Amino acid sequence: MAKDVWETTDRIETLVDGIFAIAMTLLVLNLTVPELTNPIGDLTIYAVLMGLIPKFFTYALSFILLAIFWKVNHSQFYYIKRINTPLLWITIIWLLFVALVPFSTSLTGEYGNLQSAQIFFDLNLLAIGLLSALLWYYATEKKFTDEITSEEIHKIRIINLMLPAAALFAIGLTFISPSWSSLAYASIIVGERLFK
Amino acid sequence: MAKDVWETTDRIETLVDGIFAIAMTLLVLNLTVPELTNPIGDLTIYAVLMGLIPKFFTYALSFILLAIFWKVNHSQFYYIKRINTPLLWITIIWLLFVALVPFSTSLTGEYGNLQSAQIFFDLNLLAIGLLSALLWYYATEKKFTDEITSEEIHKIRIINLMLPAAALFAIGLTFISPSWSSLAYASIIVGERLFK
Amino acid sequence: MAKDVWETTDRIETLVDGIFAIAMTLLVLNLTVPELTNPIGDLTIYAVLMGLIPKFFTYALSFILLAIFWKVNHSQFYYIKRINTPLLWITIIWLLFVALVPFSTSLTGEYGNLQSAQIFFDLNLLAIGLLSALLWYYATEKKFTDEITSEEIHKIRIINLMLPAAALFAIGLTFISPSWSSLAYASIIVGERLFK
Amino acid sequence: MAKDVWETTDRIETLVDGIFAIAMTLLVLNLTVPELTNPIGDLTIYAVLMGLIPKFFTYALSFILLAIFWKVNHSQFYYIKRINTPLLWITIIWLLFVALVPFSTSLTGEYGNLQSAQIFFDLNLLAIGLLSALLWYYATEKKFTDEITSEEIHKIRIINLMLPAAALFAIGLTFISPSWSSLAYASIIVGERLFK
Repeated sequence: MAKDVWETTDRIETLVDGIFAIAMTLLVLNLTVPELTNPIGDLTIYAVLMGLIPKFFTYALSFILLAIFWKVNHSQFYYIKRINTPLLWITIIWLLFVALVPFSTSLTGEYGNLQSAQIFFDLNLLAIGLLSALLWYYATEKKFTDEITSEEIHKIRIINLMLPAAALFAIGLTFISPSWSSLAYASIIVGERLFK
Repeated sequence: MAKDVWETTDRIETLVDGIFAIAMTLLVLNLTVPELTNPIGDLTIYAVLMGLIPKFFTYALSFILLAIFWKVNHSQFYYIKRINTPLLWITIIWLLFVALVPFSTSLTGEYGNLQSAQIFFDLNLLAIGLLSALLWYYATEKKFTDEITSEEIHKIRIINLMLPAAALFAIGLTFISPSWSSLAYASIIVGERLFK
Repeated sequence: MAKDVWETTDRIETLVDGIFAIAMTLLVLNLTVPELTNPIGDLTIYAVLMGLIPKFFTYALSFILLAIFWKVNHSQFYYIKRINTPLLWITIIWLLFVALVPFSTSLTGEYGNLQSAQIFFDLNLLAIGLLSALLWYYATEKKFTDEITSEEIHKIRIINLMLPAAALFAIGLTFISPSWSSLAYASIIVGERLFK
Repeated sequence: MAKDVWETTDRIETLVDGIFAIAMTLLVLNLTVPELTNPIGDLTIYAVLMGLIPKFFTYALSFILLAIFWKVNHSQFYYIKRINTPLLWITIIWLLFVALVPFSTSLTGEYGNLQSAQIFFDLNLLAIGLLSALLWYYATEKKFTDEITSEEIHKIRIINLMLPAAALFAIGLTFISPSWSSLAYASIIVGERLFK
């Protein structure tokens, strides 16, 4: 790259927003009406929709988790004013795991009662969380942030640790009940309130 | 989040625009040419296209309804200059239902003659409409809007109530004729003219 | 809408760019590797890729035609500085036909040797072209453009007429040869050079 | 087009970012859980995920290669301040090959052990690389760049040659081992470090 440090983060933010918008919207493709055989009546449709409830749940969960990651990134780039090649690469590898979420969600939507499917989903989120934490750690160490107090840096660091912690907690819960392990992510919402 | 109120709504608007653009474009994926068996001639294609007319109608209806919701949001964020965590969450839950529209549309496109399919579609739009109204109510109560008269706030509130009203009207019409119930949404266009 | 005329076209341009980017990229979904039965060797793959040539051609054609429409819109909104509700609606109906292009393309990609499929594609482009011309006509009549000479207005009007003319020319050619009728669109590139 | 040279590249950058974001996210659609027959247990899921490893690899490779192309374009448009019709067309044809990457990736993901599939993928990347080089060559020859030293122009030219070189290297390697030929792209990362 011809320059070591770019003085603008506009376009990386556009790419981030684009990939999040698409990944969040692609989640809906996991919701499909199965091929129905005749005769089809209202009772059939209600039965189909009832059968889709686990998939609606995983759709909503993944949508909200992606929104949380987007929101954390949003607040990180509110402060980050410069970017260099390593930081760009951290962001790209992070996006690689973000764009993988529709696949992980299709797995838990279909086989959410199996530990293997849940652990794959949790590992995907763990990777996103750890890379998000690394992104912030690197950017603050390199002083790419302007007008930020050390207290604010610290707060975002703690929020960044909560996401991997929730993923690890979810992995632990899969040994008790794969189907309910995702409730671990509710702890993020509680945790975020404590540290705000 | 490190700050309680952000002084900018740029990136949330980018996410909103992105999700709308994708949801509106994904609607087209419900239009598919069925696998045809030989011999295939022009008459076959015309028959296929004729058979797709209900799906073209639901495509156009959902595209236009999403455009209306986008337009309402557009005019809301024309005035909203600040955003806090609760407002961000209202927006995200609202987007969750926006991104669900391609699925609801696939349901009415396939089974539009059934009340169950239509009611699911209408409930989806009802949720979008109510959350859009809540978003505006919250933002104006919190004084996140600048340079706006109370008359303008009131006007957008009435427009926001028209969308849920149309969805409820559509639900009522499904008891008479599921296939024609969507005409209820035409009342929005009439209603919007009255209050402009 | 609370205001009759907005003094900014930023967000409509974002929606337009988003829908074009998605529609252009979704075109690739029409290119799929068919399910192959064993044994699969290089000769099978080459045969598959050869068989896909008509689909590659329609992919490239639609991609380039969408790029032309985007470019024309680009130059229109370079001058358009204000937008009102009717102009917004013209843009939305125009986008509805833009987002339909991946479907029309799947039809010509699969059944490009049939007149019916080609005419559907051509009618789709005709609608896009006419709405684009209407958009420009309306915006210039309403004086929503700044710093533009009447000569420039006229030039864009002529470019706008070339697109529907090419679509009509293509429809005419389908009566001679459906498979080759798309060559009519090459006349746009020639025509554009004449009037530049 | 009414003007020969536009003094802004904002909207072309938005289109570029949009198409990259979508193409990068669509890659995930190549990862699908096959239809499983009962009984399904954790061992089945682990076996499925193991079987998907080649597809995960091609997903990651294509994601990262697209990110590299995006990054190179990012640094090119950091300097390019004006655009004319030929430059717009180079960009559009370049995007046409960028949007083709999800298809090429599906081919290598499915038939990565075959030379034919790998060569198609490599030719796709070769086209992207050559058009990217042409874009930069044209823009610098036309002096569309501001505030750039001839040294910086030269550096980006060399980076632009590395991408086609890696694609040619990969094509060469397919004659030895199709499955491992993609490792040629690792040379870009090494090469980029040398010339930074």
